[in-house]
Amino acid sequence: MSILIKGGTIITAADTYAADVLIENEKISQIGTDLAREGAQVVDAGGKLLLPGGIDVHTHLSLPFFSTISSDDFYTGHKAAAFGGTTSHIDFATQRKGETLKIALDRWLKKAEGKAVIDHAVHMSITDLRPDILDEIPSMLDAGVTSIKLFMSYVNVYMLDDGDIFKIMEKAAELGMVVLMHAENGYVIDSLIKQNVAAGNLATEFHAKSHPAWAETEATLRAVALAGITGASLYVVHMTCEEVVDQLRYGRERGLPVMGETCPQYLFFTEDELRRPDGAKWVFSPPLRTKKDNDYLWRALAEGHLQSVGTDHCPFLFDGTKPLMYEGEPYQMPGKEMGAGDFSKIPNGTHGIEDRMLMLWSYGVRQGRLSPNRFVEVTATNPAKIFGMYPKKGTIAAGSDADIVIWDPEATKTVSWKTHHSRTDFNIYEGTELVGLPEKVYVRGTLLVDGEEWYGKPGSGRYLHRTPFAPII
Amino acid sequence: MSILIKGGTIITAADTYAADVLIENEKISQIGTDLAREGAQVVDAGGKLLLPGGIDVHTHLSLPFFSTISSDDFYTGHKAAAFGGTTSHIDFATQRKGETLKIALDRWLKKAEGKAVIDHAVHMSITDLRPDILDEIPSMLDAGVTSIKLFMSYVNVYMLDDGDIFKIMEKAAELGMVVLMHAENGYVIDSLIKQNVAAGNLATEFHAKSHPAWAETEATLRAVALAGITGASLYVVHMTCEEVVDQLRYGRERGLPVMGETCPQYLFFTEDELRRPDGAKWVFSPPLRTKKDNDYLWRALAEGHLQSVGTDHCPFLFDGTKPLMYEGEPYQMPGKEMGAGDFSKIPNGTHGIEDRMLMLWSYGVRQGRLSPNRFVEVTATNPAKIFGMYPKKGTIAAGSDADIVIWDPEATKTVSWKTHHSRTDFNIYEGTELVGLPEKVYVRGTLLVDGEEWYGKPGSGRYLHRTPFAPII
Amino acid sequence: MSILIKGGTIITAADTYAADVLIENEKISQIGTDLAREGAQVVDAGGKLLLPGGIDVHTHLSLPFFSTISSDDFYTGHKAAAFGGTTSHIDFATQRKGETLKIALDRWLKKAEGKAVIDHAVHMSITDLRPDILDEIPSMLDAGVTSIKLFMSYVNVYMLDDGDIFKIMEKAAELGMVVLMHAENGYVIDSLIKQNVAAGNLATEFHAKSHPAWAETEATLRAVALAGITGASLYVVHMTCEEVVDQLRYGRERGLPVMGETCPQYLFFTEDELRRPDGAKWVFSPPLRTKKDNDYLWRALAEGHLQSVGTDHCPFLFDGTKPLMYEGEPYQMPGKEMGAGDFSKIPNGTHGIEDRMLMLWSYGVRQGRLSPNRFVEVTATNPAKIFGMYPKKGTIAAGSDADIVIWDPEATKTVSWKTHHSRTDFNIYEGTELVGLPEKVYVRGTLLVDGEEWYGKPGSGRYLHRTPFAPII
Amino acid sequence: MSILIKGGTIITAADTYAADVLIENEKISQIGTDLAREGAQVVDAGGKLLLPGGIDVHTHLSLPFFSTISSDDFYTGHKAAAFGGTTSHIDFATQRKGETLKIALDRWLKKAEGKAVIDHAVHMSITDLRPDILDEIPSMLDAGVTSIKLFMSYVNVYMLDDGDIFKIMEKAAELGMVVLMHAENGYVIDSLIKQNVAAGNLATEFHAKSHPAWAETEATLRAVALAGITGASLYVVHMTCEEVVDQLRYGRERGLPVMGETCPQYLFFTEDELRRPDGAKWVFSPPLRTKKDNDYLWRALAEGHLQSVGTDHCPFLFDGTKPLMYEGEPYQMPGKEMGAGDFSKIPNGTHGIEDRMLMLWSYGVRQGRLSPNRFVEVTATNPAKIFGMYPKKGTIAAGSDADIVIWDPEATKTVSWKTHHSRTDFNIYEGTELVGLPEKVYVRGTLLVDGEEWYGKPGSGRYLHRTPFAPII
Repeated sequence: MSILIKGGTIITAADTYAADVLIENEKISQIGTDLAREGAQVVDAGGKLLLPGGIDVHTHLSLPFFSTISSDDFYTGHKAAAFGGTTSHIDFATQRKGETLKIALDRWLKKAEGKAVIDHAVHMSITDLRPDILDEIPSMLDAGVTSIKLFMSYVNVYMLDDGDIFKIMEKAAELGMVVLMHAENGYVIDSLIKQNVAAGNLATEFHAKSHPAWAETEATLRAVALAGITGASLYVVHMTCEEVVDQLRYGRERGLPVMGETCPQYLFFTEDELRRPDGAKWVFSPPLRTKKDNDYLWRALAEGHLQSVGTDHCPFLFDGTKPLMYEGEPYQMPGKEMGAGDFSKIPNGTHGIEDRMLMLWSYGVRQGRLSPNRFVEVTATNPAKIFGMYPKKGTIAAGSDADIVIWDPEATKTVSWKTHHSRTDFNIYEGTELVGLPEKVYVRGTLLVDGEEWYGKPGSGRYLHRTPFAPII
Repeated sequence: MSILIKGGTIITAADTYAADVLIENEKISQIGTDLAREGAQVVDAGGKLLLPGGIDVHTHLSLPFFSTISSDDFYTGHKAAAFGGTTSHIDFATQRKGETLKIALDRWLKKAEGKAVIDHAVHMSITDLRPDILDEIPSMLDAGVTSIKLFMSYVNVYMLDDGDIFKIMEKAAELGMVVLMHAENGYVIDSLIKQNVAAGNLATEFHAKSHPAWAETEATLRAVALAGITGASLYVVHMTCEEVVDQLRYGRERGLPVMGETCPQYLFFTEDELRRPDGAKWVFSPPLRTKKDNDYLWRALAEGHLQSVGTDHCPFLFDGTKPLMYEGEPYQMPGKEMGAGDFSKIPNGTHGIEDRMLMLWSYGVRQGRLSPNRFVEVTATNPAKIFGMYPKKGTIAAGSDADIVIWDPEATKTVSWKTHHSRTDFNIYEGTELVGLPEKVYVRGTLLVDGEEWYGKPGSGRYLHRTPFAPII
Repeated sequence: MSILIKGGTIITAADTYAADVLIENEKISQIGTDLAREGAQVVDAGGKLLLPGGIDVHTHLSLPFFSTISSDDFYTGHKAAAFGGTTSHIDFATQRKGETLKIALDRWLKKAEGKAVIDHAVHMSITDLRPDILDEIPSMLDAGVTSIKLFMSYVNVYMLDDGDIFKIMEKAAELGMVVLMHAENGYVIDSLIKQNVAAGNLATEFHAKSHPAWAETEATLRAVALAGITGASLYVVHMTCEEVVDQLRYGRERGLPVMGETCPQYLFFTEDELRRPDGAKWVFSPPLRTKKDNDYLWRALAEGHLQSVGTDHCPFLFDGTKPLMYEGEPYQMPGKEMGAGDFSKIPNGTHGIEDRMLMLWSYGVRQGRLSPNRFVEVTATNPAKIFGMYPKKGTIAAGSDADIVIWDPEATKTVSWKTHHSRTDFNIYEGTELVGLPEKVYVRGTLLVDGEEWYGKPGSGRYLHRTPFAPII
Repeated sequence: MSILIKGGTIITAADTYAADVLIENEKISQIGTDLAREGAQVVDAGGKLLLPGGIDVHTHLSLPFFSTISSDDFYTGHKAAAFGGTTSHIDFATQRKGETLKIALDRWLKKAEGKAVIDHAVHMSITDLRPDILDEIPSMLDAGVTSIKLFMSYVNVYMLDDGDIFKIMEKAAELGMVVLMHAENGYVIDSLIKQNVAAGNLATEFHAKSHPAWAETEATLRAVALAGITGASLYVVHMTCEEVVDQLRYGRERGLPVMGETCPQYLFFTEDELRRPDGAKWVFSPPLRTKKDNDYLWRALAEGHLQSVGTDHCPFLFDGTKPLMYEGEPYQMPGKEMGAGDFSKIPNGTHGIEDRMLMLWSYGVRQGRLSPNRFVEVTATNPAKIFGMYPKKGTIAAGSDADIVIWDPEATKTVSWKTHHSRTDFNIYEGTELVGLPEKVYVRGTLLVDGEEWYGKPGSGRYLHRTPFAPII
């Protein structure tokens, strides 16, 4: 069946214009003025905007962490994503010590099976670099995995030393893969956490004090330098503050192939949140910084110093001692309460996959900090380009997948965990007023969301096989 | 008649995708995969790129200067433009002392009459700010003129003092007009020229020595500051060097509504050219700088510190003592030879309207300095947006004017004044090899250029009525 | 008679060491360990510091301004200076339109006659550049005047256009003179003042709003650029904010011969003071800025981006309707009250000659923002070097004038206009606590101040004949 | 016996003035005009400058490296130092794996015994951080050792991981010690050396290619960040290029307690030297960079971005297969020839202790890049202050050690290994013309050098017991 969306205004990363859109066979087949198509379902988008479906390249669904697991799986997370206007995401398959990348990838693919509603891909996290693993990396391309995640932090868990990182980057450069980096100095953080715990500094705010901005700042330049030496494309995840972005800029101004992302939480909150009684909701790594940094990150997004907005979506229940009802079923899992009395035991992470585009629109576009085009660029187009999914994903153009959000710029809503779609018992933006919301959300021409209605079918989401040698944005 | 361009790859400021384009009634009516239209003329663009027609917002056709006139008029200049892939331009109506803006505008409109082939608009140059002129400015909007050109240089000729500039900027801010600025310190230049002439320093290279980079640097920050105080949108023309762009960046990083342009000549040449026997060909203001600046300007274009590429197209014959044959007719006019023996008498200006996109593609895109998307952005999309012509002009999108260049990325040519289309007896890029050329050029669906063939009809070009309150890019 | 100061710790711009100082014939004849001299008066400086007497290169004693005159003359101002640890200063002889520099200089020299207590020199302010004036400039060197003050502000009063400034700078470069610049864009300020007055925006805070930071910022880069082109040494006076200092740094990093000064008032206050009922006390030009700027200026002083601290000492009575008793005599003169109801009529200026070193020590050195050596450098050594008085003045070294302050780092005082020595009826630092004060102050070996006692003799101060071609600091 | 130096001009870090100097009991007892002292030896310094003896805080005398030892010992190195105007130095005691700091210190102290001529101190290099070593650090203060050297490079030899560096820095901050850092990323360098050797890239120039500037750049910011987090004073040794100094500046502008040094070789040479047949003479780590960096480092020294000039003096014979005659004795030791055919086997290091002040004066002061005062500051005063030896060392002031160089600013010499005093068979500055040389060199009032005459007595040099909590310069 074909669908004809009439009367909307298309927003791409560069253009804004009124036109009709014809969807056929999951794709956008025509964009034109006064289009007509016999038999097509006509959708009226008068007064509305047509945005490409969002792409969140940084999520952790069903992630085991400490002795629990993140509370959104590939169904609940996808539902939340769709209600937030996001139609594709990239999750992380994490290699366990001793295992091969293939095993890690298969384990992850299984998680999506029968659950996925939106389209999805995976980055490969390497945590144990043996010679056979170095040799296994090229096979990832056959599986459509074009990006590798590395950690400079989490000593003895995920962290690799600079020698291993260097070797992987050399390989990535050769294969045209992108390296995602968690850039914090693991040794510093490990020492500070231990010292704080030993000194009885157990309050939640010590989470931030144990992750100083300088530890993230130096690690960022370190990653940038390694990219410069090896020639690998680098994508620094979850950048939190001005000093950190300065390092990315320093590399970019000298022609290095480096890019970076921030996440909504770093645009809205400061470390002061950690001193709230429910501060654990805002515990994630790297931590929140200062008001100056919120302001700077908005500007860095607008001015092009940051290229993308991901979420690091990785929610845990705030109170895992009680079941949470989700689609009529009780869900229970240990959560933030594990760290009551000891900040170092709080599971790191919060939600965002549903909030990302909503918050960026209302407080970015609406408040004049981002143009609608730049909004599209950082939430969809750049992510698609950087990670090898473009132009199939990331724009509204003839031939692209019909991942379209009909966005009502005047619709309003108040954020609440009671009405959101992520499987969490809190929302860090609770009570925030939104202006501008998705009205209808299509993935490959299939309607998933219509206002408050949910039409998503578990298992209908597709795995995205990606292409290497993507451009530096 | 409708035209269906099939098989090409569309390049916009953000997107690159294969699609067919249908042109009806001067506009792009559809973009789609596998388009068909009965009766349409089908044009095969297989293996070719479709670019939006270029927009040159900085030209001086038939400009009286010293005691001569620039050698391209609204026919020859338009022909040159079209062969270079440019389908719209903005010229300057210059107020003479004592007269009103209306008189200046009418004089300019008359120049285009019966000659114009491509679409065109006009900036208003104010050189004599009387109270009645300040009151006359709003009427320019009715005439579709949304931009004002001011000079900080040319003492007693074009230059206004900062008080007048300030008043005009306040008015522009109120009306949503853009102020274009020639930013050089006129007093300094005037003093240096007089001193050099008095000292017998008459060689052509003293043109550059009389226009030091610091004089342009400070004037740029001055203009930026005045924009900051008044809130007027500023567009600094023909920026020549790193220090000057630094000032624009300084303002932009602090949120000021300021933008800037460089011109091709500043990307390719240095003041060393002035020491050539035929150095007068490279005499224009501001002058050429250094190799470091060439390199920096390329980077500034790529990284977004400059927003646009204009040309300051203002050619004079190199040897005005001899007639030049153009379309079989002899053309003669005093030229650069007027300054033989005294640099201060050389008419300032050179050609560029035909060369701009050719040189930027071959040495920008082809050499990896600019992506094809960024090429489109700085040659067409940004100029259209900044000067109130978007989305009618500046992109390839449904509903836009069918100003389309079918670009053959593999076609080659050697630059020569003998084969170019500007009415000049030299080309500063003489002998340069080009790879990537326009194959067909359409203005509102009318074919002007097909390979070496010229189909342009004098008088077919249209005046562009523009809209104020354009965005800051 | 010789004086032997024993047991103190000498502080120079670089060194800190314990040593005795022998003074003979107005000069320091010896510095040594365990010095002895028969017949010398021995002064015990145990536990005290020995600082070179301060040099304030920016004062306006008995300055006619609007229709009044600044309230300190060459006696009261010198007394205030001495109590603040300052033993030399440079005032300004201002040329009136039409007159010669000689006349202006003579008028000024007369003001000091019979009154001066400390040593003093003069900058020449040129406000009317005729050809004969350009020719007269070299004669200033014969009079020991090595520095010229110019204004980019005060349209039709002091302001010169860039052409005149350029010519004077060329002359200064040739003669090795320093150009001091009041860097604000006069046209902008003039327009804003008139607009605000016309709009009825008459409150004191509109003084700051009429002098925006951008007007000072651009003028500073303009002055820097002119210095760069002409090669003249530039000293930008009373720099108020980060953006302004950025311009100085921009020039200095590119090797330009440019230096700058801030004043204590810019380190301690913000434009918020103007909203106080007695805000007129803080009206001077350029105006106060923001807290961020206070902080930045401290850092710029410490890090070497600013080279000197002057005062722009130019007090007016707050309430000129009432006589002020000074040394038992009533003094009356129109003051700040002239601008009650209209900010544009408030005489511009405040006191500082007595406060400069006191405030910088207590809030700079004492709070760790400046080392004691840097304090000496910016209050004495650099001013002496920049303005051609070194090593006669500005340091404690064998052969230098015995201008010595025995400084008690533990002495305390509360600032009050009731106890200060400037002839003003207010003190902008009223109530501020000081720690660290001059105990004894010597000029050329003559004791002027001992605790609260005053020994100064009118007429004992000497004119300082200065030397051109001073170094760039 | 007392010495009276008459007629010279004293240069300190801030002051320049003519005065006589009296030396008694190894110290400067008086500085004055027209000094006289019965029985004193009078030395005529008319027309000469008096500089404080230089302090080289970065030397490696008799250092075992690879399977050889650096060719200057505490006698030959001191003789070379003295002829270069340097009267104090700080060497490095390097802990071997498994041993205590005390053992390392004692081994070093023994090397100086009976040989030392100039005064000397030692930094402690920690290469094996065990818990007992952390506990042993405070005892170093009792031995007068206030500084710790750490390596981020030389994997498995000297390198510590960031965790160990962090712990040592915390301890240093607590004890007021300074941490010196060799800042290069060891993992990167180790990988590149192995890859180059494996690929048969054995030529000398691969030394530079295996030590990329980015590896030094990131390590520098890493060290700066660790200093910022721990509060330790950091002194980055041998900084080679603009990007590296940028990192230091980045930290300093944000108030971090970090300082840095460059060495003469980085001011004069580029990596091109490595392509000479005798390129091995220029092999040291970090390696030489580019011409741009030479220029930048001069500016950084002048503008205060670098605080000190050391040498990393660590010579090896160029041809160790032949004996070198030194004071009539043959000396033989394997040298640079060990790396013929394999850059990775060339002993790293070159001479500098004699050349430092000579080259800096002739090409720094003489060419206008450094003022004489800044020369004194970076070669003597700052080193003394930073490393806890001030004001005993580092200046000419009453009470300081009489370490004085009578410098003849007009004396000339051509550099040659045949006439220099270091025990090496080459000089990297061979053939360079010098203008400005030491005429007489005194350590604590003892004449060591007089023109070409040598009066130094082995064993007369003294160990310098230093003081912690030195200032940040």
